[in-house]
Amino acid sequence: MRVVGIDPGLARTGYAVVEATPRGPRALAAGIVRTPSSRPHAPRLALLRAEMAAIMATYGPEVAAVERLFFNSNVKTAMAVGQAAGVVLATAAEAGIHVVHYTPTEVKQSVVGVGGASKHQVQAMVARILKLTSAPSPADAADACALAICHLNRRPLTVAVEGALG
Amino acid sequence: MRVVGIDPGLARTGYAVVEATPRGPRALAAGIVRTPSSRPHAPRLALLRAEMAAIMATYGPEVAAVERLFFNSNVKTAMAVGQAAGVVLATAAEAGIHVVHYTPTEVKQSVVGVGGASKHQVQAMVARILKLTSAPSPADAADACALAICHLNRRPLTVAVEGALG
Repeated sequence: MRVVGIDPGLARTGYAVVEATPRGPRALAAGIVRTPSSRPHAPRLALLRAEMAAIMATYGPEVAAVERLFFNSNVKTAMAVGQAAGVVLATAAEAGIHVVHYTPTEVKQSVVGVGGASKHQVQAMVARILKLTSAPSPADAADACALAICHLNRRPLTVAVEGALG
Repeated sequence: MRVVGIDPGLARTGYAVVEATPRGPRALAAGIVRTPSSRPHAPRLALLRAEMAAIMATYGPEVAAVERLFFNSNVKTAMAVGQAAGVVLATAAEAGIHVVHYTPTEVKQSVVGVGGASKHQVQAMVARILKLTSAPSPADAADACALAICHLNRRPLTVAVEGALG
């Protein structure tokens, strides 16, 4: 099982490809896709799409774990994030990748064990779970790792429940 | 000059391809792209993308006039509309189509002459300008026609100003 975690944004989209192995989750790639603010809005969304499509084609994840977005007080930022998320979701669906959503609280609960965990705690646990000497940098890439780990953590439980019900 | 007017939405996206001719604007196509609410969210965005890409490839507009979105009180609807807009903008940019935005008030001002014009007034003027016996139906398609007409109306002024400045 291979999962791509994605934290969408217009200027910066964090991504991480994490694979379940018998020895625990292993990171295959983690980073961010940047789009330059000097370019017009629509071409930035097209660039995000092209980069995400290339990452999905290279690593072939079965699932995309995408941060569930809530609108905050900054309407302009919220619109840009919503548009970036739309591009990411359409790109994943076209590649035949199943999309699941997790809230930041669900991710922290799953990775750290506490829904109100700090960014620093999340980064430390991501490094530990992936057996890295330090957390992936920048923070958006670490967040994307946490999203992917969150989905992998949930899977054994789902499988166990399905087994019990079957 | 050929313009595609687009009124983006997840369930329904209105579109209209309008061409400037010596005898005034002429509608080449107008309609809506629907995505079924029975399907998961991400595949609906992928379907919207495929349909819009096909329309753009068929008619080859130089400009996409897209409704500028503002967030309203319904956060869930706003997010879906933002995601649909993101998909539309990325698709246009990939096709090499220049994207411009107009607010609903700008469109009404341009097409009817009154920023507070009713939907009915806009539809009646769209039919008259395009020399149709009745306004394109449904309303989203008529709105998309109005967006395209708004852009064509503005163009001669822009060209004149550029000429005066040049």
